Amino acid sequence: MNRQIRLKSRPVGMPTPADFDTVDAPMPTVRDGDVLRRTIYLSLDPYMRGRMSDAPSYAAPVAVGDVMWGHTVSEVVDSRDPSFRPGDVVTGYDGWQQYAASPGKPLRRLDPAAAPISTAIGVLGMPGLTAFVGVVDIGQPKAGETVVVSAACGAVGSIVGQLAKIRGCRAVGIAGSRDKCRSVVEELGFDACVNYKTDDLVPALHAACPSGADIYFDNVGGAVLAAVLRVLNRGARIPLCGLISEYNATENAAGPNLRPLLVHRAMIKGFIVSDHTDRFAAFLKEVGPLVRDKRIKYREHVVDGLDAAPAALIGLFEGRNFGKMLVRVSDSER
Amino acid sequence: MNRQIRLKSRPVGMPTPADFDTVDAPMPTVRDGDVLRRTIYLSLDPYMRGRMSDAPSYAAPVAVGDVMWGHTVSEVVDSRDPSFRPGDVVTGYDGWQQYAASPGKPLRRLDPAAAPISTAIGVLGMPGLTAFVGVVDIGQPKAGETVVVSAACGAVGSIVGQLAKIRGCRAVGIAGSRDKCRSVVEELGFDACVNYKTDDLVPALHAACPSGADIYFDNVGGAVLAAVLRVLNRGARIPLCGLISEYNATENAAGPNLRPLLVHRAMIKGFIVSDHTDRFAAFLKEVGPLVRDKRIKYREHVVDGLDAAPAALIGLFEGRNFGKMLVRVSDSER
Repeated sequence: MNRQIRLKSRPVGMPTPADFDTVDAPMPTVRDGDVLRRTIYLSLDPYMRGRMSDAPSYAAPVAVGDVMWGHTVSEVVDSRDPSFRPGDVVTGYDGWQQYAASPGKPLRRLDPAAAPISTAIGVLGMPGLTAFVGVVDIGQPKAGETVVVSAACGAVGSIVGQLAKIRGCRAVGIAGSRDKCRSVVEELGFDACVNYKTDDLVPALHAACPSGADIYFDNVGGAVLAAVLRVLNRGARIPLCGLISEYNATENAAGPNLRPLLVHRAMIKGFIVSDHTDRFAAFLKEVGPLVRDKRIKYREHVVDGLDAAPAALIGLFEGRNFGKMLVRVSDSER
Repeated sequence: MNRQIRLKSRPVGMPTPADFDTVDAPMPTVRDGDVLRRTIYLSLDPYMRGRMSDAPSYAAPVAVGDVMWGHTVSEVVDSRDPSFRPGDVVTGYDGWQQYAASPGKPLRRLDPAAAPISTAIGVLGMPGLTAFVGVVDIGQPKAGETVVVSAACGAVGSIVGQLAKIRGCRAVGIAGSRDKCRSVVEELGFDACVNYKTDDLVPALHAACPSGADIYFDNVGGAVLAAVLRVLNRGARIPLCGLISEYNATENAAGPNLRPLLVHRAMIKGFIVSDHTDRFAAFLKEVGPLVRDKRIKYREHVVDGLDAAPAALIGLFEGRNFGKMLVRVSDSER
């Protein structure tokens, strides 16, 4: 059997376990040219909330009754495509299920000797590329500048700050607990971290950014964005990556007053990583060796078993993850 | 005597005539190297509200008791600087007064044969350069795109749309009366104009922008900006030039929900024209001939006499001007 988690209903506000259906479907049929693979890791990401909704967005929603969308690392168990062999480890978009079969073309083969396979959906995958495109391409950091990032302990934010440090910038994180802030500074090497749940944001940001903020990589929107606008330097750049504080809102929240953009000649630019896959090779070339040499560190928050995915996704929106959120769907010796 | 208008008190909300002091001061002393000039035209601009306030902004405030700041066109009446002679027409920042004396270096001599002298503080001056930098340099318009501009009948907006048309774009204005909208379309040659006071904004913008908006040159902020965010195309650019709807607010208004920036990979960039004076020569080279050939049209709203300036500035914030707002401080045969 092929265990799957399907979208049962479109959530109103925060998703609940009742919005998902866990079913045992028949094993997929393997046709000529198909590759059958078993899911090892499933990535859980904030953008999935958008796919559960039918509000207009940058990607088509998952249809009610369909298997939830998601980025995966899998092992090939049967192949009728000469490019893949059983035992190959691949990454693709197989979604929230144990098995998938389809032509092999969109799959990317991984080298388990080069890096832990889970990194293909984390620091060396889409979240890492997101950090790279936002802070490097849009942020254009210069040595000596200050880079602020929210959700600093998460899959994207943790890489943003480390890339900023490597470029000679001061890195300031914003995170939601004392433990997260400690990890951001002590393990990831940021210069400072503000706790948005307990600190008085504007004074804390002033203290953490004594020379002001030149880049703000925004993952969250809301009150945190409004506060960072108060400490901008002239010519500041704000790569807008996500608005997780608003994804579960049932009505459109107002945004921040935009006068600081004018006063400081600042820029906000929204971006979606899937537009920037042409940067993947450059990203891997730079970040691959840095991860191998442990000059860029990453932390994974792994939950076990496909059935744990709905609660883990909800946990992501509640900030309960500590690092990149992954589901270990099946074991692997890799 | 030298009639002057000075800042009497910092306005709370909309300025009132009581915030200004009209005084007859002695004629300025002309020292060695000084140029004495008589003001012909004074420009009135929305940014002046910021100078009346001591809230942190991009320019220092006018001190209470000082002559109000302003861009002027003047005639030299006496000169102890060999570069200037009586009768020369110059432009500078002489403020709200009839006479000024200071060294000639910051003054720019005008050629009254090349263009009407009032254009040096309008279509061929700071407002024209503002339009040029915003729509050309930040907006990066491509032929076939749609350019939307608010305050479309004003000094800046009217030029934005005409520059867009010259670049092969569809130009859509937003203005505050039927007469202004008619002028924007029939006199200035925009393709359409939305009346923000009477039209249902989002449907009206959809109708005026059947292919969506690629550039929104924002002069106003507030509800108009929020509405335009609903009709953006992917990769839209928003040069943020002004937020006149908020300048007289007594508390910081919330801004628009920023999710459209993410969904449409759009950019907002604040800018201040004084950062871009290096573009003045390129601007004059392109726009000078277009104005001379009447391919770019402009409209001036002239009030007579320095004493009329306070009411005229207040009128600007109420949208009572029809084109570039100027005060004719003294007569000129030019």
